[in-house]
Amino acid sequence: MSRESSAEVVRVVSIGGIGEIGKNCTVIEYGDDAIVLDCGITFPDASMFGVDLVLPNFNYLREIRHKLRAFVITHGHEDHIGALPYALPEFDLPIYGSKLTLGLVGVKLEEPGLRDQADLRVVKARETVAIGPFRCQFFDVCHSIPDAMGVAIHTPIGTIVHTGDFKIDHTPVDGVPLDIQTLGRLGDEGVLLLMSDSTYADQPGHTPSEAVIAETFDRVFNDAPGRIIVATFSSLISRVQQVVDAAYAYGRRVCFVGRSMERNVRVARDLGYLNVPDDAMEVDPRDLRNYPADDLAVICTGSQGEPRSALVRMANRDHRFIDLLPDDTVVVSASAIPGNEEAVNQTIDRLARQGASVLYERLLPVHVSGHAGQEDLKFMLTTLRPKFFMPVHGEYRHLEEHRRIAERVGVDAEHVLVAESGSIVELSADDISVVGETDVSNVYVDGLTVGEESDATLRDRRHLAEGGLVITVVNVDRHTGQCLTEPDIITRGFVYASDAEDELLARARDTVRSVVDTGDHADASPEHLQRKIRNALGRRLFRETRRRPVILPIVTEV
Amino acid sequence: MSRESSAEVVRVVSIGGIGEIGKNCTVIEYGDDAIVLDCGITFPDASMFGVDLVLPNFNYLREIRHKLRAFVITHGHEDHIGALPYALPEFDLPIYGSKLTLGLVGVKLEEPGLRDQADLRVVKARETVAIGPFRCQFFDVCHSIPDAMGVAIHTPIGTIVHTGDFKIDHTPVDGVPLDIQTLGRLGDEGVLLLMSDSTYADQPGHTPSEAVIAETFDRVFNDAPGRIIVATFSSLISRVQQVVDAAYAYGRRVCFVGRSMERNVRVARDLGYLNVPDDAMEVDPRDLRNYPADDLAVICTGSQGEPRSALVRMANRDHRFIDLLPDDTVVVSASAIPGNEEAVNQTIDRLARQGASVLYERLLPVHVSGHAGQEDLKFMLTTLRPKFFMPVHGEYRHLEEHRRIAERVGVDAEHVLVAESGSIVELSADDISVVGETDVSNVYVDGLTVGEESDATLRDRRHLAEGGLVITVVNVDRHTGQCLTEPDIITRGFVYASDAEDELLARARDTVRSVVDTGDHADASPEHLQRKIRNALGRRLFRETRRRPVILPIVTEV
Repeated sequence: MSRESSAEVVRVVSIGGIGEIGKNCTVIEYGDDAIVLDCGITFPDASMFGVDLVLPNFNYLREIRHKLRAFVITHGHEDHIGALPYALPEFDLPIYGSKLTLGLVGVKLEEPGLRDQADLRVVKARETVAIGPFRCQFFDVCHSIPDAMGVAIHTPIGTIVHTGDFKIDHTPVDGVPLDIQTLGRLGDEGVLLLMSDSTYADQPGHTPSEAVIAETFDRVFNDAPGRIIVATFSSLISRVQQVVDAAYAYGRRVCFVGRSMERNVRVARDLGYLNVPDDAMEVDPRDLRNYPADDLAVICTGSQGEPRSALVRMANRDHRFIDLLPDDTVVVSASAIPGNEEAVNQTIDRLARQGASVLYERLLPVHVSGHAGQEDLKFMLTTLRPKFFMPVHGEYRHLEEHRRIAERVGVDAEHVLVAESGSIVELSADDISVVGETDVSNVYVDGLTVGEESDATLRDRRHLAEGGLVITVVNVDRHTGQCLTEPDIITRGFVYASDAEDELLARARDTVRSVVDTGDHADASPEHLQRKIRNALGRRLFRETRRRPVILPIVTEV
Repeated sequence: MSRESSAEVVRVVSIGGIGEIGKNCTVIEYGDDAIVLDCGITFPDASMFGVDLVLPNFNYLREIRHKLRAFVITHGHEDHIGALPYALPEFDLPIYGSKLTLGLVGVKLEEPGLRDQADLRVVKARETVAIGPFRCQFFDVCHSIPDAMGVAIHTPIGTIVHTGDFKIDHTPVDGVPLDIQTLGRLGDEGVLLLMSDSTYADQPGHTPSEAVIAETFDRVFNDAPGRIIVATFSSLISRVQQVVDAAYAYGRRVCFVGRSMERNVRVARDLGYLNVPDDAMEVDPRDLRNYPADDLAVICTGSQGEPRSALVRMANRDHRFIDLLPDDTVVVSASAIPGNEEAVNQTIDRLARQGASVLYERLLPVHVSGHAGQEDLKFMLTTLRPKFFMPVHGEYRHLEEHRRIAERVGVDAEHVLVAESGSIVELSADDISVVGETDVSNVYVDGLTVGEESDATLRDRRHLAEGGLVITVVNVDRHTGQCLTEPDIITRGFVYASDAEDELLARARDTVRSVVDTGDHADASPEHLQRKIRNALGRRLFRETRRRPVILPIVTEV
């Protein structure tokens, strides 16, 4: 599979981010050089019990360790930078990115103590940086974080354009639109391969400008009788700016609440990406009670219903500084990411139960996406006129839709490649194809453990979650093979406290005892006896309850 | 709390369905008589590991058992009829409902063997039935199942109108629109209390007619090169009818696939609610392979990504009769119910990976809701002009929105009551208020067990799911209190197989041993020793892994 790439081809290997949303990480490899584009994490789905984060599998990076020259980062979201603290100790490479992106990377590297030795190299949009045989030309894109860039990677066989995450916004909050001029020039000069963001490829039409939110905020600030509390993504600095602007216009003070919100606001202000017009308008969370309610706008975390976030603490009445009041207006200025809907809805309900007026996406336009819709994707394709096209950043259905869009605007169907994370793609001047696969099994961060071989662990957790646990403790006479004492049965998450269940357990004990006492254990190992107990007990419990707990027989020979 | 209601008041007690979506069940009580409106279940949310169904808590029904006269059912959805098999053995009452509703109830009662003794009483729309002091006048409503009805309950103190679930559809598939005439007359005669469906109270505008789906199907049937596979709710008979109609128009045969789909289609056809124009056009699933692909339309279950449904089996390539082909067109004709998004998306991705063209809600209009939007709710309020208003059927935020809508169309704010499941509401000719609460703790169906006292069980399952399990087995000398053998440690869902973890467990064994051997157990009970082991081991494991497994020490004195 892993034959060396020849000099006439470029290898493109995404170890995350194709056929999935999250943990974006793509290797661009030519001869003896390679760069790594983005290095993100993803958050666990509902089946990954107890998992904190999911990392890309770095096996491929290890294989080509001698070729690696740099990380190139498109923007500062977790799914593009979050795995750097795990990658850097192993792959000590310079990191290229915009000023804000590297500011956020720097903050991430602080806690694990990696910041000082990290080689962070700020690049500007329209700048071109040579990294080995690659000339990386950066261009501005709009996205739900400022200072996001796409990159044109000029290689000896042609130009690869990677959009990063993007949308088209002609009236962006930070005043920096998509760099259409550079894209046009790239299109004229010739693009060999386009890799373009597919996250919203199933969304018809154009994605609206962030500017539409300003109208909503205007209305909300005009109407709200008491405090205004806006929850959004802490990285969505443009949304934070919009709240600050509205507060300024309506003479309210602002207060930033929540750890990641306070941290990102600090970085963005320090680097000049967030403008609070008057320092005096900022209120410390501890001082909130000293100001009249209609003088305040709070900007906080928790828009996804995250358990320990500021908004969820308010919803649960256990925030240190904020008790909700009936006159409060809460705006959830975000979409629920799939999987978070129940948590978001529960949070809204709990806020509403306290009498607050809660405004959310279904009621009025409080959020727009940071990803290009179908018409915007067509714009990118027709502007760059790539010879080859690979849809990236999206689940499989999004990639397929993006493929259809590309074909609809005239890209040769033979020249569109729908790959997946782990595909080893080889690109030459006149061909693109998958030549192999590399292992991209999920790597889980779980507490202090980082490991990929935990599918069995997760399977056990699922089984325990579904069926609970039944332990039976048996003391067996080493000589006679008979029970020395009545078998004991301990359960967790299995039985409900009631008389019927006591009887069930009594019958279960009888089953265990009879397996031990009546069996012929002359040649039996403890493992053999355990298996017999597990089978007999499992059958009995299933017959009586239609449930399948995890059964652990513990046999002690005395 | 539970003072007897006096003759001048009607008690309204929802033991499910207010402040939550699902398990609708409302008691209407006057003097010594009461009727039970709907008796539904809800499906477990993500936190209810291993739970199959959630029932309303029947405690209040038990309290007023002597008053109960009948169940009155508005339509045949699970959240309105699903708890009847659990209620009937305890409350043997006649069941009133429309023909299709009772047909579906009958099917539900078959499996537990309750059908024969059940007293099912079919009522027609516009019919009025006297049940004790209540005159129940039924009227047609539109909803995502045929033969749905609302009910006006004429009581000695005034009329209570319960809409059931409803939408307004002027071009319904079955030709039966909302009975606006009856509603108008009721409005003129005077409505004391309106209880109206709030499920879509946060959706601005009118809910579109089912007819818009026909245009989509027309386009899909016109374009599809191979088989057309439509997944939808098996109770959504109108959608099934639309697929059948399109198939007939385009000369395709139809095939019903999936247990609940086949069952509901049978009931609906038998009772005349589903019209298959030509019997010859139906194909048995086993014979599908005998027909050309472009001759077929399959209608199946699985629109919510349910693990054992037909569509999910196709997605996983393990359906007995259907292997997907690249020319197949799959239509997911439903919205994902909150909590099901990940499962639905995964199913779509797996179908797309097999090359099928998958059409779903974001791409084109393949689904409309069965619930009234904000403008439709205003229509209901202005038509009935109720003196008092209680929003029902919705989570808290929906009830609050519905309250605002009612006030906006002129209902006196003092006359709107946002209650919740369990509220004991008393209604008189000139007042409505909550006079008490009844216990509505969830009752879980889990395998063969039905019980309400399982929150501890669920908490244990969550803990096991998050942290896994660590068991330590210690054999202690009864006389010296010392370990007789090296403590054993067994884990499930906790450790990953690796050398580092072996060392972790070795250190954990040392911890256990030292707790046992160094402790002063002169006066120690086994429970005391277990607690000491649990604490010491928990601290050690958390320090080393930042995880908190369930720890079960098993101490045997020998």
